[in-house]
Amino acid sequence: MDYRPRPDDIRFLLGVLGAGDQLRTLPAFAEVDDALAGQVLDEAGKFVADVIAPLNRSGDEIGCSFEAGTVTTPPGFRDAYQAFQQAGWPALSADQAHGGQGLPAVLEAVLYEWLSAANQGFTMAPGLLHGAYDCLKHHGSPELKAAYLHEIATGQWLATMCLTEAHAGSDLGLVRTRAVPQADGSLRVSGSKIFISGGEHDLTDNIVHLVLCRLPDAPPGPKGLSLALVPKQLPNGQRNAAFCDRIEDKMGLHASPTCAMRFEDAQGWLVGEPGRGLHAMFVMMNSARLHVALQGIGLLDAAWQKADAYAAERRQMKAPGHTGAEPSLIAEHPAIARILATQRAWIDGARLLAYRTGLMLDVARHDANPKARASAQRWCALVTPVLKAACTQQGFDGASACLQVFGGHGYVREWGIEQNLRDVRVAMVYEGTNEIQAIDLLVRKVLPDGGADFSAMLVELRSELDASRDHDADAQRRLAQLRYLATGVALAAKAQPALAYEVADDFLRVTALALLAWSWARIEAKAPDGARWAQPAAALRRWVLPEFDMRLAMVKRASEAVALAGAA
Amino acid sequence: MDYRPRPDDIRFLLGVLGAGDQLRTLPAFAEVDDALAGQVLDEAGKFVADVIAPLNRSGDEIGCSFEAGTVTTPPGFRDAYQAFQQAGWPALSADQAHGGQGLPAVLEAVLYEWLSAANQGFTMAPGLLHGAYDCLKHHGSPELKAAYLHEIATGQWLATMCLTEAHAGSDLGLVRTRAVPQADGSLRVSGSKIFISGGEHDLTDNIVHLVLCRLPDAPPGPKGLSLALVPKQLPNGQRNAAFCDRIEDKMGLHASPTCAMRFEDAQGWLVGEPGRGLHAMFVMMNSARLHVALQGIGLLDAAWQKADAYAAERRQMKAPGHTGAEPSLIAEHPAIARILATQRAWIDGARLLAYRTGLMLDVARHDANPKARASAQRWCALVTPVLKAACTQQGFDGASACLQVFGGHGYVREWGIEQNLRDVRVAMVYEGTNEIQAIDLLVRKVLPDGGADFSAMLVELRSELDASRDHDADAQRRLAQLRYLATGVALAAKAQPALAYEVADDFLRVTALALLAWSWARIEAKAPDGARWAQPAAALRRWVLPEFDMRLAMVKRASEAVALAGAA
Repeated sequence: MDYRPRPDDIRFLLGVLGAGDQLRTLPAFAEVDDALAGQVLDEAGKFVADVIAPLNRSGDEIGCSFEAGTVTTPPGFRDAYQAFQQAGWPALSADQAHGGQGLPAVLEAVLYEWLSAANQGFTMAPGLLHGAYDCLKHHGSPELKAAYLHEIATGQWLATMCLTEAHAGSDLGLVRTRAVPQADGSLRVSGSKIFISGGEHDLTDNIVHLVLCRLPDAPPGPKGLSLALVPKQLPNGQRNAAFCDRIEDKMGLHASPTCAMRFEDAQGWLVGEPGRGLHAMFVMMNSARLHVALQGIGLLDAAWQKADAYAAERRQMKAPGHTGAEPSLIAEHPAIARILATQRAWIDGARLLAYRTGLMLDVARHDANPKARASAQRWCALVTPVLKAACTQQGFDGASACLQVFGGHGYVREWGIEQNLRDVRVAMVYEGTNEIQAIDLLVRKVLPDGGADFSAMLVELRSELDASRDHDADAQRRLAQLRYLATGVALAAKAQPALAYEVADDFLRVTALALLAWSWARIEAKAPDGARWAQPAAALRRWVLPEFDMRLAMVKRASEAVALAGAA
Repeated sequence: MDYRPRPDDIRFLLGVLGAGDQLRTLPAFAEVDDALAGQVLDEAGKFVADVIAPLNRSGDEIGCSFEAGTVTTPPGFRDAYQAFQQAGWPALSADQAHGGQGLPAVLEAVLYEWLSAANQGFTMAPGLLHGAYDCLKHHGSPELKAAYLHEIATGQWLATMCLTEAHAGSDLGLVRTRAVPQADGSLRVSGSKIFISGGEHDLTDNIVHLVLCRLPDAPPGPKGLSLALVPKQLPNGQRNAAFCDRIEDKMGLHASPTCAMRFEDAQGWLVGEPGRGLHAMFVMMNSARLHVALQGIGLLDAAWQKADAYAAERRQMKAPGHTGAEPSLIAEHPAIARILATQRAWIDGARLLAYRTGLMLDVARHDANPKARASAQRWCALVTPVLKAACTQQGFDGASACLQVFGGHGYVREWGIEQNLRDVRVAMVYEGTNEIQAIDLLVRKVLPDGGADFSAMLVELRSELDASRDHDADAQRRLAQLRYLATGVALAAKAQPALAYEVADDFLRVTALALLAWSWARIEAKAPDGARWAQPAAALRRWVLPEFDMRLAMVKRASEAVALAGAA
């Protein structure tokens, strides 16, 4: 069963956020009214359903093939990409000056959620474009921008991020690829990279690699890293010495070639300053991580659509209270109903948070008021790692739960649900493993200022709730508990720095659950009557939020143990 | 990396259980002393490591192939199975009178845990033998036994269980396959079955199908089901009309053919009484479900071995407190150490419970004292569904956590960890989905007598602890909380029967965690000093047992809501 976007759900959630009003305060989007946004969503939904979704299964079954340095994508992928590109979808949020549509990041977020849901193997290809675009736009020289920015913005050429080496994964400071400056101002880049998504393919005529490398005499570690732009085809029409040696055989995402790349004195050009390669990449970090969170949400929604449809037609045994002669629909069995409603609690609650993050990216880029920009930037910095980890974890756990709805029929290809599970698993790993996200949140962002920024962000969330409503009051209580917890961890971690690393995963998780409670309080305040929103809201309180108290207690206990040890 | 059994760990755990002493009280095993048991384990470990484990990866990559009704297993599988069979391993616990070795079920449990860990695709083939053997031994006619029991006990012929039909999965009462009695006392069996593991293959010359079917004029539903034995090769040498139409393309277990079978007036013979087909199958239920639990444990141990080895050689970044110049081993990073220790807490704790269940199967079969047999039977009935669900869930979740240790290297084939994750997933589904296990535990076994049997089992466990030890006292508290919870649910479910179905999954889970606490209290009382046992014990208390309180509160809240609704 192919994925079908449901734009009405998205419109409702954007309405809960007051997205339209918020965007109109930004000069860049003064003309993006609800009618235009709605039209973009409808057309995106149609394109995703008609062109991208139907290629999902064959993309997995046939996959990419590699021969003598060239990569062939599955049948239909090149045509689909060309249609995607020519319709202007890659350039949705790029500046109009660069050939883009100049639309808000929040709409791009919805588009990519749907693309991921429909066909993540396909979506890997354009998925890196916005990051490469931002990186080049902010750090590229005028010459590089003139030569590459338009082609990347419009997706005429695809782009890669060449970071990982065999010995340097989470620890990019170990990267060894060398870049030697030449008399003409270019670089000669040499080294081997692995896990390069889209390192080689037949979707576009040129591929632009952004390669993390080390200049001669650069210091060891992350501060010695620079970033080079290395195109597959040189401006003079020659083939550059950037080669694909093999593609990986992976658990999933068979339609996306994961390449081992070899650069042999390949010609390249510096992007940004020497030794500031990681800095140049970080400009795209929040948006890239948000997109990985959206993969988790999207693939979970795709799994849910399948399971929901199956549960509404498969009959087995009688559910409690069932009186008819024939067996019940399995949707009526409490265990199945729980699985389905719980996934919706995650999907819709996480969507609200992800779309808010998209809006905050827009505010951070375009608001005239520096305070508003700073506050939006704070939200993005703190919430993005939470969403990346929590949404991809739930994407996997929830897809497994949806597979369970099918029983044995879920373990075979028949319904396609096992592909969801295989495809979504990598999202817990790439763009920084979920464990790295947890360290990023707690160690790098919450603790350095003693929790002050985190606390300010929570207070802002709190102010958007109305304590006269029960669910709002409940969410406020959790936000307050979380603030208190952050302060306690900050104190204890001063006495014992290792503590922060030990509790980071639980701290991220308890944060995610508090945000989810906030999210659903906002949704319920606006939701029309009926099971569509009431069932997941009830599932959240009954089956999801109990974990909040458990994780809270775990982190608290560990922090108190440090305090007690200090007193002894 | 191939799996390697570690017999010393098993010997220690069997020692904690006092398995040797317990077995010697059973006349059937009077001669099974520790030396013999140890020798069987050592040889089993060697056979598994040398012959079975090396075929795991190629079995997955090449898989089974199907052509014109015949199935070819992956290269080396036929030879390995012949070696396995000729060494007498399939017949480990079968009676010596039938060509077996007459060894205890608990040793067979260890053997199958290792086989599953090493190569679950292979293990599917002999995995159904003991069930078919028990079924035939208890319910077969003297003629059927004479013709089939020896061949099945020794594994000379493999066996299948043909239960599922396209419309009848969890709900076997819907089975339609027909069996028409013939003048010569045989049956003519017609119908289509799906998901038949080993329905067709090239490992043995004959395959014996046990087919759930319906005699003419049988009542609808489960009480109209009978069981027929349908061999592939008839005693007269002719090919029977039992055909394989296709094999499924599955997420994992590629080395095991999952067959769609078609019976076209195939000749068969009744096993057991007409209309008692499910009853005849139930004789094998506990032992089959225990083996599925062991698959979860085994495949998790295999995933752990890989992750543990990788974490002990891969260096990335500096762990907190690390002072050396080079990066830390990833095993030193708290997030990785937590993943590894948590899996060991599950593996070793669950092993103790599974081996105790194996022992109880031996006691239930062989103890001279009817009271001891009844108590052992009670343990098996109550604990088996708990282990089946909890161990397979953790097998999957834990294998995913182990994959996470590898980062991107876990998502590609390279280290083989993604195969573990794909292979173990089905164990949550087959032999009764985990949701069915939860209903089996609570609705069918705990509630009918108001929790009396369950309570008696918990009291027995409690009596094996020594409250002067802290961890024992903690485990006792949890067992007491669980008893109280069961009583509360039993009361509330009388007022509202649907409640039991709504809380069944959480009730099973809280039971599993109480049993795990018991298990580790027993282990710690005997464990030598050192990290091997202390680390997982600490992980259990810090990261696993908090879920106990969470689930307890969830079930309690739901039960109290019923009581409050009744009072209103």
